[in-house]
Amino acid sequence: LVGSAVPVNVYEYHALAKAKLPAMVYGYYASGADDMQTLKDNEEGFKRLRFRPRVLIDVTKQDLTAVIMGTATSFPMVLAPTAMQRMAHPEGELATARAAAAQGVIMGLSSWSTTALEDVEAEAPGSPKWFQLYVYKDRAITLELVRRAERQGFLAIALTVDTPRLGRREADIRNSFSLPPHLTMANFAAIDPSREQGKMTGPGAKGSGLASYVASLIDQSLSWKDIQWLKENSKMPILAKGIETAEDAVLAMEAGCAGIIVSNHGARQLDGVVSTIDALEEVVQAVRGRIPVFVDSGVRRGTDIVKALALGASGACIGRPYVWGLAVAGQQGVEHVIQMLRNEFALAMALCGCVKVSDIKRDMVIRDVYAPYDVQAQLKSKM
Amino acid sequence: LVGSAVPVNVYEYHALAKAKLPAMVYGYYASGADDMQTLKDNEEGFKRLRFRPRVLIDVTKQDLTAVIMGTATSFPMVLAPTAMQRMAHPEGELATARAAAAQGVIMGLSSWSTTALEDVEAEAPGSPKWFQLYVYKDRAITLELVRRAERQGFLAIALTVDTPRLGRREADIRNSFSLPPHLTMANFAAIDPSREQGKMTGPGAKGSGLASYVASLIDQSLSWKDIQWLKENSKMPILAKGIETAEDAVLAMEAGCAGIIVSNHGARQLDGVVSTIDALEEVVQAVRGRIPVFVDSGVRRGTDIVKALALGASGACIGRPYVWGLAVAGQQGVEHVIQMLRNEFALAMALCGCVKVSDIKRDMVIRDVYAPYDVQAQLKSKM
Amino acid sequence: LVGSAVPVNVYEYHALAKAKLPAMVYGYYASGADDMQTLKDNEEGFKRLRFRPRVLIDVTKQDLTAVIMGTATSFPMVLAPTAMQRMAHPEGELATARAAAAQGVIMGLSSWSTTALEDVEAEAPGSPKWFQLYVYKDRAITLELVRRAERQGFLAIALTVDTPRLGRREADIRNSFSLPPHLTMANFAAIDPSREQGKMTGPGAKGSGLASYVASLIDQSLSWKDIQWLKENSKMPILAKGIETAEDAVLAMEAGCAGIIVSNHGARQLDGVVSTIDALEEVVQAVRGRIPVFVDSGVRRGTDIVKALALGASGACIGRPYVWGLAVAGQQGVEHVIQMLRNEFALAMALCGCVKVSDIKRDMVIRDVYAPYDVQAQLKSKM
Amino acid sequence: LVGSAVPVNVYEYHALAKAKLPAMVYGYYASGADDMQTLKDNEEGFKRLRFRPRVLIDVTKQDLTAVIMGTATSFPMVLAPTAMQRMAHPEGELATARAAAAQGVIMGLSSWSTTALEDVEAEAPGSPKWFQLYVYKDRAITLELVRRAERQGFLAIALTVDTPRLGRREADIRNSFSLPPHLTMANFAAIDPSREQGKMTGPGAKGSGLASYVASLIDQSLSWKDIQWLKENSKMPILAKGIETAEDAVLAMEAGCAGIIVSNHGARQLDGVVSTIDALEEVVQAVRGRIPVFVDSGVRRGTDIVKALALGASGACIGRPYVWGLAVAGQQGVEHVIQMLRNEFALAMALCGCVKVSDIKRDMVIRDVYAPYDVQAQLKSKM
Ligand SMILES: Cc1cc2nc3c(=O)[nH]c(=O)nc-3n(C[C@H](O)[C@H](O)[C@H](O)COP(=O)(O)O)c2cc1C
Ligand SMILES: Cc1cc2nc3c(=O)[nH]c(=O)nc-3n(C[C@H](O)[C@H](O)[C@H](O)COP(=O)(O)O)c2cc1C
Ligand SMILES: Cc1cc2nc3c(=O)[nH]c(=O)nc-3n(C[C@H](O)[C@H](O)[C@H](O)COP(=O)(O)O)c2cc1C
Ligand SMILES: Cc1cc2nc3c(=O)[nH]c(=O)nc-3n(C[C@H](O)[C@H](O)[C@H](O)COP(=O)(O)O)c2cc1C
Repeated sequence: LVGSAVPVNVYEYHALAKAKLPAMVYGYYASGADDMQTLKDNEEGFKRLRFRPRVLIDVTKQDLTAVIMGTATSFPMVLAPTAMQRMAHPEGELATARAAAAQGVIMGLSSWSTTALEDVEAEAPGSPKWFQLYVYKDRAITLELVRRAERQGFLAIALTVDTPRLGRREADIRNSFSLPPHLTMANFAAIDPSREQGKMTGPGAKGSGLASYVASLIDQSLSWKDIQWLKENSKMPILAKGIETAEDAVLAMEAGCAGIIVSNHGARQLDGVVSTIDALEEVVQAVRGRIPVFVDSGVRRGTDIVKALALGASGACIGRPYVWGLAVAGQQGVEHVIQMLRNEFALAMALCGCVKVSDIKRDMVIRDVYAPYDVQAQLKSKM
Repeated sequence: LVGSAVPVNVYEYHALAKAKLPAMVYGYYASGADDMQTLKDNEEGFKRLRFRPRVLIDVTKQDLTAVIMGTATSFPMVLAPTAMQRMAHPEGELATARAAAAQGVIMGLSSWSTTALEDVEAEAPGSPKWFQLYVYKDRAITLELVRRAERQGFLAIALTVDTPRLGRREADIRNSFSLPPHLTMANFAAIDPSREQGKMTGPGAKGSGLASYVASLIDQSLSWKDIQWLKENSKMPILAKGIETAEDAVLAMEAGCAGIIVSNHGARQLDGVVSTIDALEEVVQAVRGRIPVFVDSGVRRGTDIVKALALGASGACIGRPYVWGLAVAGQQGVEHVIQMLRNEFALAMALCGCVKVSDIKRDMVIRDVYAPYDVQAQLKSKM
Repeated sequence: LVGSAVPVNVYEYHALAKAKLPAMVYGYYASGADDMQTLKDNEEGFKRLRFRPRVLIDVTKQDLTAVIMGTATSFPMVLAPTAMQRMAHPEGELATARAAAAQGVIMGLSSWSTTALEDVEAEAPGSPKWFQLYVYKDRAITLELVRRAERQGFLAIALTVDTPRLGRREADIRNSFSLPPHLTMANFAAIDPSREQGKMTGPGAKGSGLASYVASLIDQSLSWKDIQWLKENSKMPILAKGIETAEDAVLAMEAGCAGIIVSNHGARQLDGVVSTIDALEEVVQAVRGRIPVFVDSGVRRGTDIVKALALGASGACIGRPYVWGLAVAGQQGVEHVIQMLRNEFALAMALCGCVKVSDIKRDMVIRDVYAPYDVQAQLKSKM
Repeated sequence: LVGSAVPVNVYEYHALAKAKLPAMVYGYYASGADDMQTLKDNEEGFKRLRFRPRVLIDVTKQDLTAVIMGTATSFPMVLAPTAMQRMAHPEGELATARAAAAQGVIMGLSSWSTTALEDVEAEAPGSPKWFQLYVYKDRAITLELVRRAERQGFLAIALTVDTPRLGRREADIRNSFSLPPHLTMANFAAIDPSREQGKMTGPGAKGSGLASYVASLIDQSLSWKDIQWLKENSKMPILAKGIETAEDAVLAMEAGCAGIIVSNHGARQLDGVVSTIDALEEVVQAVRGRIPVFVDSGVRRGTDIVKALALGASGACIGRPYVWGLAVAGQQGVEHVIQMLRNEFALAMALCGCVKVSDIKRDMVIRDVYAPYDVQAQLKSKM
């Protein structure tokens, strides 16, 4: 990472990672479901928003810090949980944990980590972490996971609500994707070795091994009442990860969730769903500030984070961007991606006239020009 | 169809079929009218819809079955009638009939089948079938067709109402398309040999032979009063196939049609017509649930079927997708296409939080983001 | 024009003409102004309209004929005046005149014809013709032109109102476009030889010779009061050719024009103007049926003509399409282009359920899907 | 610049300049911020507007002159200030100054001129010039600049309000952009040599040297009260350059600005901001004619200037277009670019029926066809 080879944006990290990773691994990381329409739409959704920048505001003393679910972070960005990071880099989740700690951001750790959660905690002790939970049919195993995370000081459970079954990722089907044999889903080593490799079928088998794994082990019956069950078994606040509608936002509040992550799982579950930045506002309006709302899927620039906050999010999470950083340069790559996004975020705030994060307001963005300004204004005047 | 060669979606079947079929046959199957604007728009129409997926609903026990015009089917999809299937595969309509029966879906059989309807029924006895009717100027011949279909136990007539003349399919004009000499329009063998090959002119002739055939033999005077005439001559319920407006939907109900298929004939008749998924909703609103409404043209994914049902359809029909399956691998190919669509449909339902088909509701989809959510909401609040 | 080489649509004539014509001539015929944004938009404007086709209407006895400004024509299409046709084909305007007469359509003859209007009349005596008028600074010469046209039985004056100066056609500027020396603007031979070649500067000169010609000879002072002056000097009805706004449509009626041609001169004058099919409706609404409204610019298909009529036009004119036919095959090419458009028009009418031209109604088309049907309906319900 | 090599539009100058300039210099001139979405959108914003041209108006005696902030100019166009012009051509700002004077337009001179403002004034004495001001942390130096400009007879200060920090221009980051060593920011030679080259770091350093320069020297605390401070120290009227919202337009008036330039700095500051032509109208409406409003960013054609004026601007400024002219042919190139735009402007006015600049009216343009005319009209009728 020296000289002119240093990437200047997230897209360049993506290109370098693509060149470096085996096709099967790259396919797993990069793909969206089906025709990958939503994968594109997630990014375009942000681009369809336009800034209305304010000027001549003293921005000398910028304060980018944010309090995310009670935790002070260096800026309102969170590392979304992504599975199997040792496929990207030998140090996998350990490198990510060190990077997050060094950069002062929360790390989401996947249930399907290739490093045991205890080892991740030990590598970056005390740094803020969320544990992403997939609920297994075997509820005892599920609770064991939750308790271990709580014991290790994880601050919250990010309960993934959009994955009763795994999305159709055609690259994985074609590649018969499966966790490489030298790696394990390390959180399950101590509990149940069968869940370590899961039903990830061997080289002879066809189709996505991960999809089979999910179909046989993950609990499709998961429902709102299970939030209550989780709350009875853990003091960690629960974030519902994967909500895209006002209706479900209301149910999440009623069920006692402490926060919502508007997410379509990086477009990896159902192709054709609304882009998250388009869904964000109806969720924010339904929640009315009672619990914080986060958003992920498609965030690639610091400007995207400003847009998310302008529409009412308390923070934005990134998935693939830091995975690309990890693949290219381990901890250093993850840190650089976080730094780039923070720098872009700071600059965008300054150029919008914002000193602190709470200065980012709804009227700083409008939807794109295809609904031109005067038409919007007329409609608004009728509300 | 083994190993990595197995197509993972309908588009791959299309590509394989294109590579395999003679240019004239491929041209006939693939083409739309004129500039093929509607051919593209039919598919894009579905893509312009976005899901609003619901989460945390127990989807363990999914029930995909649907009752289509009184017939139980494995999921709400129907094989639309497509002509001359023996050009795609030596077993033609026989392979399709076996596939439909095996997969538990209704087969629409074209008037222009290259296998006699009696032989099709004998190949898959008792399986649900609809007979697609083209009305010939010679009404005696027409009635003979209808009576034979009724005798064989066909469950309904799909009366094609959008073809007083054949659309301009330029590939067919360039290729002087004509049924290959070793094949016949087999339904007419017993009645009138001249209708077997029709006016399909020989290799020396110019332009689309099928267009000439239609011009000379099909009845351009067909009108709403002929529904009455058909009802007097057959007990089979009549589906009006090819309606795109609320006005005609109302007329169809008044004329006593038992169902409506919103269709633009796979974009093969009039280029520039509204895409069927865009037309569907006005028809549904006009019909107000009094008779079932189906839709075809452009369905390529299980998600498209969910979208159709969300907008009020009772089922969706596919044409080209299963023709490509037939061309690639006969019965097995047709079955695989049906299975893929059912699997995609099931997954999409699960990821939308739907257990049974009737759980699919209007508010699960919105129109695309160019009319952004808040603008739509504002307009809605004014209704 | 035999065998598989026969073009099946207007675009193929365009391609053949492009291959055949010298670059300077092709550039002059094909170009639009500046960035040719409107050239594209004119065609796309038609494509943005969608048909709502009506079915089950007896279309056996179609009547395509139309009465255009009192003249019976074989269908509601007119050949727009286009200059300098001998550059396309040695027989130039003579071939066009014979073709129009044979096909029963009105021919518009340009002031800048490369054949004298008397010779054109003699070639197709009595067939319906309009004389397109450019008003010269020298009003005596202008009146002389008008009187000669009237004497020859031309039925109307199409007064071009959008050309006080010539549009910036960059191909012409680059090619230093000028009428080839063996040709003349033949209408001026008898009057004033200087206007024959005009200020079209020789091979050494730079920029568009035609633009210089217009700048030095055409009257930039032309205004509404000149309609009165023309009416005093001729009994021929006057069509205002080149109107794009409701405001000017009203002024045209007040000035005593007998008809309006909504035109942007085939996108050759001001780039960025509204496409004619988008402008048509406001003109039709302003005129309220008191005088006929025609439209040209971008018509390439019979379906486009149906769309124009659905929006209230009494007919559509074509420019380039028949010029390409002329370039490829002289009279035969022009006739074939007319026939193709009539056939496409007839088929589109049939597939929309129209027996006669007056059956084409406003509700047969809607604007494109980006303003989806339900939103439009809601807006409409508010009117 | 002879013969067929003469560019016929601004785009061709751009292409020639690109071929001629060193990559680092071209990158600096051409780039926008981040993904250059706004760079594209600025140009497309103009293209999304459509003319409604008026006809039959006597346009013989056109008057293109405009009074801009009290100064008579040959047409309502201004040369926006652009930095470091000696990188484009050895004569740099001197050539530009002579060209502006010869063509009768106002020249904006950048604080970061590579020629001292006194030398620029001496080269084109008495011709109208604005001084673009960047406010340095060192306010004494800033005032010194202002006083020198005032002494030299500059007519106004264009205070750049959109640059508390420099935008992320990735070409500059990749190229470690820095002013070439043989050039200086000449306005600072007499005051403080450290500001001549600034913190533009040497060849070994990484990232944009200009961005570092701005970060260390330019005053991020600049705010509305500094307008008052400027007014106390200079009699020159102040134009706020870089406003994009109605809110800031009101503040600018309240602060005593004499004019507003709606600008996003040629898309070089914050990517994703609204295109200036889309922002213009809300500013115009807020200002209600009390002070003149100008617009820049994306102007490439004379038609764009007409569109800007139709939406209420008193003039339009160009940046890159004349920089390309300068790079290609020095003074002559700048003059030719100005002439081309004036010629295009004159022709567009004529073809819209405008004799003098004040004839350009709001109803001469509509927003694009995606919000079709009738929908817009309906909305309008509801206001
Ligand atoms: C390679 C990869 C693995 C992921 N693994 C998980 C996971 O194990 N659990 C989960 O809830 N989400 C997972 N996600 C989704 C992310 O948490 C996040 O929602 C998504 O990546 C955000 O979209 P983006 O990649 O466009 O930033 C994964 C995403 C990717 C790309
Ligand atoms: C090759 C082919 C042949 C067809 N033949 C008939 C037919 O004989 N009768 C009929 O009513 N529709 C016919 N159709 C239309 C289909 O019934 C159906 O409306 C259409 O294929 C649906 O569009 P899709 O192909 O995009 O799924 C045919 C379509 C194709 C592609
Ligand atoms: C090569 C060419 C020459 C033309 N010459 C004239 C002309 O002399 N007078 C006139 O009023 N319009 C002229 N026009 C405009 C046509 O009358 C008509 O408005 C236009 O061609 C319609 O657009 P289309 O070419 O897209 O069909 C010309 C158009 C072309 C393409
Ligand atoms: C190479 C270049 C240098 C510029 N330098 C300055 C500058 O020093 N000060 C300033 O206020 N604006 C500067 N600008 C912005 C211009 O004043 C103007 O806002 C912009 O160029 C207009 O956009 P356009 O290039 O699309 O016409 C610069 C722009 C360019 C392209």
